Amino acid sequence: MKSNLDVVNDCDSFPYYDADPQAYTELVSSYYELFTQPKSKPVGYVLPWVVEKMPWDDSLWVVDHDKKQIYPKLTQSKGFDATLRKAREIGAFKVLEKWRNELYTVHRENGLDPVGDPTITVERSGSPLFGVVTYGVHMTTYVNTQEGMKIWVPKRAKGKTYGGLFDNTVAGGIATGEQPLECIVREAAEEASFPEELVRSATKPCGTISYFSFRDKRAGGESGLLQPEVQFVYDMEVSEDVVPKPCDDEVEDFRLWSVDEVQKAISESLFKPNCALLLLDFFIRHGILTAGNEKDYVEIVSRLHRKLPFPTATTM
Amino acid sequence: MKSNLDVVNDCDSFPYYDADPQAYTELVSSYYELFTQPKSKPVGYVLPWVVEKMPWDDSLWVVDHDKKQIYPKLTQSKGFDATLRKAREIGAFKVLEKWRNELYTVHRENGLDPVGDPTITVERSGSPLFGVVTYGVHMTTYVNTQEGMKIWVPKRAKGKTYGGLFDNTVAGGIATGEQPLECIVREAAEEASFPEELVRSATKPCGTISYFSFRDKRAGGESGLLQPEVQFVYDMEVSEDVVPKPCDDEVEDFRLWSVDEVQKAISESLFKPNCALLLLDFFIRHGILTAGNEKDYVEIVSRLHRKLPFPTATTM
Repeated sequence: MKSNLDVVNDCDSFPYYDADPQAYTELVSSYYELFTQPKSKPVGYVLPWVVEKMPWDDSLWVVDHDKKQIYPKLTQSKGFDATLRKAREIGAFKVLEKWRNELYTVHRENGLDPVGDPTITVERSGSPLFGVVTYGVHMTTYVNTQEGMKIWVPKRAKGKTYGGLFDNTVAGGIATGEQPLECIVREAAEEASFPEELVRSATKPCGTISYFSFRDKRAGGESGLLQPEVQFVYDMEVSEDVVPKPCDDEVEDFRLWSVDEVQKAISESLFKPNCALLLLDFFIRHGILTAGNEKDYVEIVSRLHRKLPFPTATTM
Repeated sequence: MKSNLDVVNDCDSFPYYDADPQAYTELVSSYYELFTQPKSKPVGYVLPWVVEKMPWDDSLWVVDHDKKQIYPKLTQSKGFDATLRKAREIGAFKVLEKWRNELYTVHRENGLDPVGDPTITVERSGSPLFGVVTYGVHMTTYVNTQEGMKIWVPKRAKGKTYGGLFDNTVAGGIATGEQPLECIVREAAEEASFPEELVRSATKPCGTISYFSFRDKRAGGESGLLQPEVQFVYDMEVSEDVVPKPCDDEVEDFRLWSVDEVQKAISESLFKPNCALLLLDFFIRHGILTAGNEKDYVEIVSRLHRKLPFPTATTM
């Protein structure tokens, strides 16, 4: 039985500077900083063994091993694309075996012009190799019944990453050019067969959660890759006659669980780690977890909204 | 007209390590760390000029000027109390002129025994001299009217700190031994004449906000003192016939404002700085500020829930 703070620690596993400045500094200084241009802030960290295995092309990248800094020579997107395709071709990284043909945006410091590249993009499966911030949407769909609040919980399909674990009602990654709201509408149709009109009228944006993870083997591919993430959070209250049905192959089935059932499954690590964090945020916003019943309340609320060490999206 | 991020910056003004590690380290290393015992984590930072003016008693404190560390010799509470009374007597600090006779708890690392002192307390007016985390409660009381949501907004009385600025419907500091919920019930009666039964049945805990401020002259006393704070957040929806009335001398009067009116006043710096942050959190949780209309959405959500560099309360 894990405490809620244990559950947060499982996902937001990257250390904090203030907890141990020396250990943090040693860890971070072992990474290569990834820049969009020389005077910008870094947009990601690249692990030393990733730097070594990546087939950097000298015409596209400056890899400064003394300063442990990586810059693009021309346009960053072209660099990401050509280099990841080459890496995939030579089988350099297991994460690239699940090539998605889906682009994620690398958000850079607001107001700084990129190197001839209005939107910097990277193939989704390659994003953890660069340790850049990725963005998604998660929606909790719930029913206020006579026996209390109940939450629609899907089980992830066996063949998928985190197969067999429970998930948020609807969730997905935000591809380049997609707005968070449009993403949740699309995913709600694909994963739960929710009609577009229902989602547009009933869903409510409620903030974000953010955390910084080390990927483990359940994520697929190499362990230890860095994954700083922001999830746009949505609630959707529905009546008892609204029943989600799987449409694509992501989800096996749905169950309508009481808050107690959800909390028990969280404490038994039966949820995908970041989905458990989304539910803790839901419980806090809905007055289910309180200062009176959760001793780590203050710490948990901060940890669910980590300020990441890289620039975050100003527009999606 | 300030942006919402400007408003956050006004209150959460203490720098972040990741934004500029060198500047942060230089700043923090100029402070004295305050400890509850040698191997604990620091519970606050004391500014060098405060260290110099404070009448430390050698029988109560170890002040190590080489390491810039301050420890209690006996019990921390006795040290705080005796030293602050002496400082007040000799007129060392302006902040102590508003002596409150109210104790705040200094929360230390979970599980670590203090030096013979089960609960460490410090006189409220002296807490910013030690830079320790303080705790409060803030409640937004709102009405869903036919013209949309409206919020009850008090104006702070002229003679008070931040006099003439707008405030959250009900707010106050949590004294030692008081639970957040009990604090909001008490303050709701004192500041808005809300009946206890109404508050107990209608208020909903919705998380916390946290930030790290440098105090300015509007707070009273010396400028530049450090104020890391956690506010327990409550919402209370009421019907149109519930009308708050000032009871004590904190508040001049109340107005029922539309969301637009509140947002305009926030952008014109007419709210007490930390109260504006509480309202931004309210707007985010209620889907009023969204990723679609607030370009700094991701940054703002993180900044409203700062992880402070000191241990925070596990039980109040």
